[in-house]
This record gives sequence, structure tokens and C-alpha cells, in this order.
Amino acid sequence: MPSDFVADDGADAGDAIDIREQRRRAEVDEPSSPVARFDEPLPLDAGVSLSPWQIAYQTYGELNADRTNAVLICHALTGDQHAANRHPVTGRPGWWDAMVGPGRPVDTDRFFVICANVIGGCSGSTGPASVMPGATRPYALDMPVLTISDMVRAQARLVEELGIETLFAVVGGSMGGMQVLEWGVSYPERVFAAVPIATGVRHSPQNIAFNEVGRQAIMADPDWYGGNYIQNGVKPSKGLSVARMAAHITYVSEAALHRKFGRELQDREFLSYGFDADFQIESYLRHQGSTFVDRFDANSYLYLTRAMDYFDLAADHDGVLPNAFRSSPCRWCVVSFTSDWLFPTSESHRIVHALNAAGAEVSFVEIETDRGHDAFLLMEPEFHRVVRGFLTGAARARGIAVPAPSA
Amino acid sequence: MPSDFVADDGADAGDAIDIREQRRRAEVDEPSSPVARFDEPLPLDAGVSLSPWQIAYQTYGELNADRTNAVLICHALTGDQHAANRHPVTGRPGWWDAMVGPGRPVDTDRFFVICANVIGGCSGSTGPASVMPGATRPYALDMPVLTISDMVRAQARLVEELGIETLFAVVGGSMGGMQVLEWGVSYPERVFAAVPIATGVRHSPQNIAFNEVGRQAIMADPDWYGGNYIQNGVKPSKGLSVARMAAHITYVSEAALHRKFGRELQDREFLSYGFDADFQIESYLRHQGSTFVDRFDANSYLYLTRAMDYFDLAADHDGVLPNAFRSSPCRWCVVSFTSDWLFPTSESHRIVHALNAAGAEVSFVEIETDRGHDAFLLMEPEFHRVVRGFLTGAARARGIAVPAPSA
Repeated sequence: MPSDFVADDGADAGDAIDIREQRRRAEVDEPSSPVARFDEPLPLDAGVSLSPWQIAYQTYGELNADRTNAVLICHALTGDQHAANRHPVTGRPGWWDAMVGPGRPVDTDRFFVICANVIGGCSGSTGPASVMPGATRPYALDMPVLTISDMVRAQARLVEELGIETLFAVVGGSMGGMQVLEWGVSYPERVFAAVPIATGVRHSPQNIAFNEVGRQAIMADPDWYGGNYIQNGVKPSKGLSVARMAAHITYVSEAALHRKFGRELQDREFLSYGFDADFQIESYLRHQGSTFVDRFDANSYLYLTRAMDYFDLAADHDGVLPNAFRSSPCRWCVVSFTSDWLFPTSESHRIVHALNAAGAEVSFVEIETDRGHDAFLLMEPEFHRVVRGFLTGAARARGIAVPAPSA
Repeated sequence: MPSDFVADDGADAGDAIDIREQRRRAEVDEPSSPVARFDEPLPLDAGVSLSPWQIAYQTYGELNADRTNAVLICHALTGDQHAANRHPVTGRPGWWDAMVGPGRPVDTDRFFVICANVIGGCSGSTGPASVMPGATRPYALDMPVLTISDMVRAQARLVEELGIETLFAVVGGSMGGMQVLEWGVSYPERVFAAVPIATGVRHSPQNIAFNEVGRQAIMADPDWYGGNYIQNGVKPSKGLSVARMAAHITYVSEAALHRKFGRELQDREFLSYGFDADFQIESYLRHQGSTFVDRFDANSYLYLTRAMDYFDLAADHDGVLPNAFRSSPCRWCVVSFTSDWLFPTSESHRIVHALNAAGAEVSFVEIETDRGHDAFLLMEPEFHRVVRGFLTGAARARGIAVPAPSA
């Protein structure tokens, strides 16, 4: 299992956790990454608007003179803007380090890469943990419920602010893939190429069900305090941990669980006949739960899962999905993974069929892997070759210069 | 959704719940069904024994003069002995009413049917909610961890007590199917025919993971009180409800969720932009959670899920599964359902291959249905025809008389 961040000042574990918690909270309003702040209201699908609001982001590589080489990376449910840099709280490498960087498929020697924390998140963009304007307390449940379309509207404002008229590409997996789809639908003329990965055009009832279990686990925790845990100096760690454990099962395939854990016991030769973590899979899940609590805000988890549940591209277009993509000028590359049961390949087929029906330029690749939904975050050579190849071809079409060979 | 039991004495909802809770608690030690009580110790796999102990059961039909027509029904995780009679707490029909009764596939006009609450359960057999011998409090976590093999050992003692040397058949699905397999392995000479349904020879890591999420949800509830909630006059309703919600997702197929709920809204035309149950699937899951709490004990849930996790038939036979079934004289009928992802057909194949390798007489049927794991509890005509046909053939071989045609 990956080791978590450990403070290097000789502090003991308790102090290290306190320091990490302080850092985590500091990142909410005053992130260590760049942040764009806006006084003009951000209109939301809920019918209200946010004002002021802010969006925290990271960039990698350099914007070319024509401003044509910008790639927007959209993160998934529990991701953040730290796609390819060390995380300021956990000290771990960026969540898409395998994909984004010099010489990587999303090549920062060639592209100017932007990754922003979504609205509703907890890493510096306005979300339920942010201090409410005119108050000294966080929004908590006074934050309006947000949608994928709201997230994308905020990103579009940021992209404008960075002086970019048209993105070369928008790339993302899972909830990030929903944002890619929304970009292609809401701002088709501002995206040259789009790569939605391991995603779907609407959340399925099974996925809504898993999200609902997570939300109920959080809200069942008395330390949630009706959403007001921050003012009460606590956080609903147990509930959030259970939510993460349930969700984590959906990120991995049954085959991978067999391969990695089987029924192997954890640090013991015999069953304990008790409720300790006898099996490695139990120990692994508990670890996933407890480390997640150190880096994520429980209310953000409620809001972002809700945004996924609400996502339904066709519903916004009279129930006719191809209408959403009508006259899409983008080049599309849709990717799915054979063992992903959260967003199975059938969901990608639905995207591809609608794009084809709308006359869009679309390629589709299903990657053979046993690593489940999480495959999009992992070192999957075939998947990386596909993304690299697609972006290289699109860059040629867009006339983006090939980087000079490194010394 | 099925309506729950409502007291018919004009009491309001709160009183009805109190009355139901009193009934539920009364059933734990003094069930309204027959109960066999034993002073002789029941040895357990944990290396200790229970003494005294009791096992609550129901019977349907009549034992024939040769005592050859007894069928033991084994219930699943949250089942009980009330397979074919109205439930004393909820007032609802028996959980296998579709399968067991006069003229049903397990025909009570022909067979003497026994169904016993498992050891570790909460409907009258000794379990964590039972009063601990020599104390005035429940066992709670002082109950030793139990196994499927312990459950079967207790059932074997009951069957003996009822004067039955050899069961005509043992039938059960899911955790009940594990018990059927264990019967065939531990008492091969005492079972004529065995019908394991929607089950497996060992719990998979994914299934252990789901169980662990449920246990963590229960243990995270402060009203669990380290297992001592009964003495504290409360129960961990929220945690148990979350556990049930997570488990329930695994009982139904994605296709059935699409068919039954899709993304339909619950009692509203538009999204609420809130955390209410907007979607029918959310409302349905919450209902599953809250009604479960009314009829089940949280510690029993911990113990029974643990017993499932520990189940590994091959492990008890040097890791060689066919050795478990060596020289099995039973007739076997293994049944799986195409859309069951908790115990997929591949798990049944494993059973069938091992039985074949052991030279046992085995037939196997995979039922085409989109209703998932729960199909075994539902009115599935093809499934019922298979069970009826298999039992009829076996009864002929066993020389059990055909019932007289009803008037």
C-alpha cells in the first residue's frame, strides 16, 4: 500500500496528522496553487448564482504564441488540480502523473496543460467548505446543489481569463469524462478535440444507488452535524470512510481483487475468529477509507456525487442524445475499459452512437484490462498509446509544433 | 413497494413501531415458533462451544412413516425460519412462500419441510442478541465467531432430535446454499439430494469487501456501543440501514434497476437541487434500509456476514475442492442465475466441476433472468420448474409417495 505523507520534522504521527489537517484546511480558501477570483456572478443550474467565487488550478508547459496548444484536464470525483505535481497535503505524486508530463501522452513539452479543481470541490475552488461571503463560517449546506454543467461553466470562465479562446483538447475520466462531454456540448466551438474516458452520458440507477449509500453513511455520522461539522470542530470521519470504502469497491474489478488479494490473510497465518481485518482485502479497504478522510471534505463528497447523479445529457436536449452533439465540430476519442463495471463499455457505446448519429468525427477504443474503472488512473500502456496517438494526430491537424528532441 | 406490518388496533405509527420492536425482541429468546433447547455443548470451529443453546424452527407438511420425506430449507443472510408462514414481527408472507407450500415446487403435501433459524441469527436460535447463560445481558460480542459449518452442525442436531436419520433433501440459496454445500460435505450419508442455489464454495474478495463495508457502517454508529447497544436501550439503526442499502445493491442486477427505476423521479416532476431522495432508486434503497432495521439485529448481521466471509470449502480439504465432495452419495442440482453478480454462474461452475471431478451425480441449470441474485426469492417460473422437476425425480428414486390429487 502506498505510504502516506509523513512530516519530516521529527514530529510524531499525531502531530503529522494535525499538520496535514491544517494544510488541508488552508488549501480550501487559500490554495498553494494559482487561483482565479471572480466578483461577477457564476450562474448555476439551480437557478441561483455564486458571487464572489474562485477556481484553483495548476498549469504545466507553456502556452504557444498562437494560444492553440492548451489542454484542459478534468478531474474525477475525488481528484483535484494537482494532476502532475506533488500534492500539497499528502506529499504524493500528481494523480495523473502517468499521463501528464514531459514526453508523456499529454506532453507538457508540447501542450500547455491546465487542470482546475471543480466548483464544489475542496482544494481551492469555491465549495461547501469555503467561507461563505459575508460570513465567518463555511457554506456547508447553504452551497447550492451544483451540476457538471456548472463545473464546466466555471472552467470556461477560467480558460477565458487565461486568454485562451479555443482549447486544443479537453481530457478526463469518470466525472472528468462527464465534464469533457459537457464541454463538447456546451462549448463545441471552443474545443478542438475531446477525450471522454470511462464515462457515460448519464449516471445509471446503480451508480446513483452507490452514491446514495455513501451520502447516507456520511449523513448518519453524528459528527456530520447536519453539515456544520467544521464550526463544531470535528469531521464525520467514520461516515466518510465508509462512503469511500463502498465507492472504492466499484473502482476495481472482481478479477483484479482476485489477482491482488484473493482470500489471502493480512499479517496472520490463521483466521482470528473475530472482527479484525483478517483478510487483506479488508485491510486494504480500511486503508482506502482512512487515508481518504485525511484529504477530502465530507460535504464536497455529497455535492460532487449529487452532480454526477444529476448528469443526464439527453434530458437537457428533449431526451434525444444526438441532439446534444448536433453539429459538433470536435474530433472525439472515446475510451472504455473491458473490466470497468461502474462505467461499462456499453455506456461508451451510447456516446459513440450518439456522436455518429450527430455526424461527428469520432473514434472509439475499448482497452483490454482487468483493472476496472481505476485503469484510467494507472500505467496502462495500450491506453496511453491511444491517447498519445490521438493527440498527436489532432495536434498535426491543428498545426501545433512538434517539440524539439530533448538533449 | 411492499407495505410493512401495521398494527390493527388503531395505534398510531409510533406505537406500531414500538409494538413491532417489542415483538422482535421477544422472538430472540422466546420465539413464537417451535424451539429445540440443548444443554449438551455445541462445539464450534472457533475452538469453544455453546452451552446451553437453542435452535428455533418451523415445519410444514407431515413426516411420513418411513421418515424419508424430510426437506431442510436453509435460509440466507437476513432470512429466518419463517419460510412459508406469516412473519410474527412484520406480518408479511414467508420469505419463500413462492417455493414452499401445498402444490409448490417444495410440495408440503408430499414433503415434511423444516426450516430453522441459523445459529448466530436473531429469530429464536442462539445468537449475539440472546441472553448469555448465567448473565442478564445479551452475548453481544462475547458470542464466539461462528461459521457455516457451525450452523450446519446445529441443524444436524435438530434433525436428529426430530427423529430423522436421513434428509430427503437440503435446499437453499446464497448463504443457504453454502449450508447446503456444507451438509453435502459434512454429512454426505445423511442427505439424499442437495440443491445449492446462487451460491459458491467460498466468499470472493469482492463479496468480503461488501460485507466489510456493512460491518464498518454498523460499528461506526455510536449507538452500536461496542456491541452493547441493547443494554444501552438503543440500536445502531443508521449504521445497520446503510449496511443493508449497500448489500441490497448487490442483490439486484443493473438491468433490473434500469427496468424498475431508470432515472425516474420520486413523487416530483423536477430535480429538487437538494439531498432529498429525488430518484426512485434512492427512495427504494432508503426504504430497504429502514424496514430492515425493524426486523434484524445489528450484531447478528456482523456474525452472519463473518460466517460467509470465512466460508471456504476447499481450505478445509487441503485446498483441493473435489476432495471435499469425495464419494458424495448425494444427487446434486446446482442452480445459478444469469444476472447474479454476487454469486455469478462462474461460482456455480466451480461447484459443478468439483462435483464432477469427485464422481458425484450432478445436474446444473443456469436460469435466464435479469433479476439478479434476488431471483432465487422471486416467482421465477423456469427456476421453480427446475426445482420441482429435480425433487420429483429424486422422490421417485427415494420411493416417496405421490400426494393424492386434491379435491
